Amino acid sequence: MIKVTLIGAGNVAQHLISTFLTATDIEIVQVYSRNPTTIIPEIDSKKIISNFSDLKEADVYIIAISDDAIASVSSQLPFENRLVVHTSGAAPLDSLNGKNRKGVFYPLQTFTKGKPVNFKVIPMCLETSIPEDYPILEKVATAISDNVHAINSHQRKALHVAAVFVNNFTNYLYQLGNEICIENHVPFDILKPLILETAEKLLTLSPKEAQTGPAKRNDVSTIEAHESFLSNENQSTIYKILTQSIQNHGKKL
Amino acid sequence: MIKVTLIGAGNVAQHLISTFLTATDIEIVQVYSRNPTTIIPEIDSKKIISNFSDLKEADVYIIAISDDAIASVSSQLPFENRLVVHTSGAAPLDSLNGKNRKGVFYPLQTFTKGKPVNFKVIPMCLETSIPEDYPILEKVATAISDNVHAINSHQRKALHVAAVFVNNFTNYLYQLGNEICIENHVPFDILKPLILETAEKLLTLSPKEAQTGPAKRNDVSTIEAHESFLSNENQSTIYKILTQSIQNHGKKL
Ligand SMILES: NC(=O)c1ccc[n+]([C@@H]2O[C@H](COP(=O)([O-])OP(=O)(O)OC[C@H]3O[C@@H](n4cnc5c(N)ncnc54)[C@H](OP(=O)(O)O)[C@@H]3O)[C@@H](O)[C@H]2O)c1
Ligand SMILES: NC(=O)c1ccc[n+]([C@@H]2O[C@H](COP(=O)([O-])OP(=O)(O)OC[C@H]3O[C@@H](n4cnc5c(N)ncnc54)[C@H](OP(=O)(O)O)[C@@H]3O)[C@@H](O)[C@H]2O)c1
Repeated sequence: MIKVTLIGAGNVAQHLISTFLTATDIEIVQVYSRNPTTIIPEIDSKKIISNFSDLKEADVYIIAISDDAIASVSSQLPFENRLVVHTSGAAPLDSLNGKNRKGVFYPLQTFTKGKPVNFKVIPMCLETSIPEDYPILEKVATAISDNVHAINSHQRKALHVAAVFVNNFTNYLYQLGNEICIENHVPFDILKPLILETAEKLLTLSPKEAQTGPAKRNDVSTIEAHESFLSNENQSTIYKILTQSIQNHGKKL
Repeated sequence: MIKVTLIGAGNVAQHLISTFLTATDIEIVQVYSRNPTTIIPEIDSKKIISNFSDLKEADVYIIAISDDAIASVSSQLPFENRLVVHTSGAAPLDSLNGKNRKGVFYPLQTFTKGKPVNFKVIPMCLETSIPEDYPILEKVATAISDNVHAINSHQRKALHVAAVFVNNFTNYLYQLGNEICIENHVPFDILKPLILETAEKLLTLSPKEAQTGPAKRNDVSTIEAHESFLSNENQSTIYKILTQSIQNHGKKL
């Protein structure tokens, strides 16, 4: 049984709490929330604290709070030489205060409030400042996920940038697609099966193999027809840049 | 029972054949393939023809061939005043020769050779040049799909452009994500659950609601860190343009 304390009560903390409660090898010692009225479902209210001075001994302290508060909160912890980890893809290991043993416990997924996730398939990206701590963090991660990876700070940075492309930027393209639908009186719902299939294709094909479309085929007449169809400047700029980039891809720009 | 003849033996034609064979209200009269050695699974070989002069009477002729061959092939059909439709999102209704009644039977999905699809959920976008033909095409579509829409040429053009954003461009972002992973020695597989979740989120949230990330939050320090991480010019150009576009979105550019 590994004893875990959570610091934070946001999106990630709440999802971690729900899944830790179902894991047989994990005991949640306490949950810290600076705002004691935050609703933390299913947790015994005696375990919810809002003063760092009330923190009890645990094997791991997981700080799941906004990136820019990690340094300050980790410096306020009233103990030393314990294992303290954050859950961020973007924050460096060294954003954690040096008085404790440091680590990262980064679930590479996008969480939505109220939407349950299956942690078993979520990649858990782990790093510890000293090798002796890795097995502890690994035990916590394998208690909830079958998809656990040792990822150093450089690799995590790369993953975080790549995640911006495949998640934030992709979702923005969905937004532009939605806009085009609204402007032309077609329901965006019609595109949803295509969106799902585009993502699911990656389970059988590499993105390179899966690439299709006018830019890839260098189908100039379709590209011209699309460009003259798009009257919105933002949409048409993005269309041109991505089309050119696909056409030139592999070549030196 | 509606009698359907398919002209073409490519990706779309083969998927349509497989699904028509399972539909109780559809009889496949013939399949035309210019190349008689093309493998067309499950079809009685006597029904496979490679001369237009062998074409028998049918209620609908579905031309599922490359966009730029639709005009020429439809002009070679040795009959008049029958219902002839194409399956393209990009080709206009008028690419079909005027000697027959025209229509469009556009399955809005990306098909992969050998990967079965569930037609029941695929949006079928229908158009006919005369209203009397619409019910015939609708019967064919509802025999295979629960997701049938009357879509005029202008709307189809909009959907096709929007599909480029949510399918071709999105897949290209997956390709850039994959590249970043390869360059930094992390397996691209780690990003796949995130990619799937990003698509699946649209079932509960609008893309606008689902938008997250440093650009959306205007988190300048993360954006700068990402920009200095990306040494590849193409990746960094796309990163900048999409980040700016998300930041300015809604504002006048
Ligand atoms: N969201 C995701 O999809 C995702 C995925 C992977 C990793 N992460 C990482 O997980 C961490 C938490 O993200 P999140 O999405 O859960 O954020 P969130 O939902 O915005 O929650 C942030 C939490 O941090 C607390 N907090 C902020 N500043 C604080 C301070 N100075 N002192 C104490 N508590 C403070 C907030 O408390 P109040 O409620 O009182 O404001 C809240 O509980 C971040 O490092 C993030 O990068 C997020
Ligand atoms: N692929 C998709 O995901 C998708 C989705 C929706 C709609 N569509 C539309 O469906 C249509 C077919 O696309 P596809 O993906 O099935 O194409 P495909 O797999 O490339 O197959 C093209 C077919 O057209 C035939 N063909 C080409 N030129 C011809 C000519 N001059 N005379 C006779 N046959 C000719 C080819 O015959 P050979 O085999 O002998 O070359 C082949 O059977 C297109 O209009 C496309 O826009 C495609």
